[in-house]
Amino acid sequence: MNKLLIVGTVAFDAIETPFGKTDKILGGAATYIGLSASFFDVESAIVSVVGEDFPEEYVQVLKNKNIDLSGLEVVKGGKTFFWSGRYHNDLNSRDTLDTQLNTLADFQPKVPENFKNADVVMLGNLHPLVQSSVLDQMTETPKLVVLDTMNFWMDCALPELMEVIKRIDVITINDEEARQLSGEYSLVKAAAKIQAMGPKYVVIKKGEHGALLFHDKEVFFAPALPLEEVFDPTGAGDTFAGGFSGFIAQSKNVSFDNLKNAVIFGSNMASFCVEKFGTQRMEELTKDEVSNRLQQFRALTQFDISLQS
Amino acid sequence: MNKLLIVGTVAFDAIETPFGKTDKILGGAATYIGLSASFFDVESAIVSVVGEDFPEEYVQVLKNKNIDLSGLEVVKGGKTFFWSGRYHNDLNSRDTLDTQLNTLADFQPKVPENFKNADVVMLGNLHPLVQSSVLDQMTETPKLVVLDTMNFWMDCALPELMEVIKRIDVITINDEEARQLSGEYSLVKAAAKIQAMGPKYVVIKKGEHGALLFHDKEVFFAPALPLEEVFDPTGAGDTFAGGFSGFIAQSKNVSFDNLKNAVIFGSNMASFCVEKFGTQRMEELTKDEVSNRLQQFRALTQFDISLQS
Repeated sequence: MNKLLIVGTVAFDAIETPFGKTDKILGGAATYIGLSASFFDVESAIVSVVGEDFPEEYVQVLKNKNIDLSGLEVVKGGKTFFWSGRYHNDLNSRDTLDTQLNTLADFQPKVPENFKNADVVMLGNLHPLVQSSVLDQMTETPKLVVLDTMNFWMDCALPELMEVIKRIDVITINDEEARQLSGEYSLVKAAAKIQAMGPKYVVIKKGEHGALLFHDKEVFFAPALPLEEVFDPTGAGDTFAGGFSGFIAQSKNVSFDNLKNAVIFGSNMASFCVEKFGTQRMEELTKDEVSNRLQQFRALTQFDISLQS
Repeated sequence: MNKLLIVGTVAFDAIETPFGKTDKILGGAATYIGLSASFFDVESAIVSVVGEDFPEEYVQVLKNKNIDLSGLEVVKGGKTFFWSGRYHNDLNSRDTLDTQLNTLADFQPKVPENFKNADVVMLGNLHPLVQSSVLDQMTETPKLVVLDTMNFWMDCALPELMEVIKRIDVITINDEEARQLSGEYSLVKAAAKIQAMGPKYVVIKKGEHGALLFHDKEVFFAPALPLEEVFDPTGAGDTFAGGFSGFIAQSKNVSFDNLKNAVIFGSNMASFCVEKFGTQRMEELTKDEVSNRLQQFRALTQFDISLQS
């Protein structure tokens, strides 16, 4: 089986949306990426760190999905990274209420020996030096390296971010972040500038408005599935990244046409994530549901116009 | 040739965007609809009103596109409807600076005899009583009646709007207006409620984020083409409506699958409209450009994933 290496946070989240509120629950970029990628035929491993307070029950959630956790460091006496946020009424924006780095502050990632030749590396949102360190440890050049990041790192670690961006194939980023990173308002221009920084492919995530994939002069668009209810957008971007990288790892095909498919698979996975709080929907999700909703994506976007003039 | 009857304003617009400013130029819903529909093999007519101040040069713009103007009333001594607006930096919102109804205030539409059997009726944004009056004058039931409206009429003529909505097949409306009309935030729920008001098809326009077509439990999505530059969004919604209704009139096929195509054609036409100020781009546009960009729409959205589980 092909191998997918995932780096990112494994965390506690406390979430408030217009529909309810949670105490500390399982969260983190690597968690969502891992759960999402587990729907593909890949061998995946998470490299991350937690504290001694991280419950066995949450470890089990990831183990149940056959995710290799030999790269998950547990710091004795340490506390797990904690994030708390409140979404606005439209669910498109949120305020961070609390961030406690805890064990994440001194995290030195250690890639397990048997994943140093992973086919695909998914660098989830983390300090760019941690992302770089993972790439340094690879013994074989991966078929594809995907990086997710956010405005926080552009604000406080831009030189380090620019360094790691040079080394990757695909960046996934939201629209506002693409504008910030490039200084361009037009997403077409922003994507061109970001490609010039290194990555051959730029994925711009627009939340409920879908995702764009840019490559050279080409562009592909995948809509978000229009849903009756969105309960909690937390983890949707990471779930997208998990579907994207999981599909590529499974197929080991890095053509532009296959990356289009990966964007569709990513959007498909993300459409489930938002239906319940936290990781709940992803934990209970079945392969049949995934496959049925892919048909909905096809119906949503495919047409057979004859394009005569 | 099949017939398309267009009702809407023919107007003067004064526009300010971050990229520049115009004096009074040719504008109005029926103008944009007519220019857009002229790219299809249809015989189209505009029913509208202008004042004596409306220049022959602007009449000629419409005549050059073979649009029948026998239903365009010129009020002696009257002044033409005038709208002036300023767009915000993101071009997604605007302030109306001035509205002068002028001859539009007492407008009684008169459908030309030879268009009372039009195949498709496109009711552009106007007072709902004017829209109703046009339907009253039809001697044959059109294959399809499409209505465009806006929040202004929901605020000040809701009962009249609800009456005309009962009589149409397709409503085109933007996302905020769909929410206002239905009282639902979710566009899926909003579309269901609006369908219950009468129209079998609901098109929700999301500007740069594309357009959704709802019918029963089905939904189709057409993205907006990602553009390097958007100069002026004025008339984009009307240009969409013109492409949508023009394509349906040309094909005379009102199946859901063909309405999907109409949404693509509408989006395609709208993508040109925003590239220059006012009607300029639509006036100089060629059929070859239209046809080439349709290929871009195909490339933007079509994928050939094999959807096995």
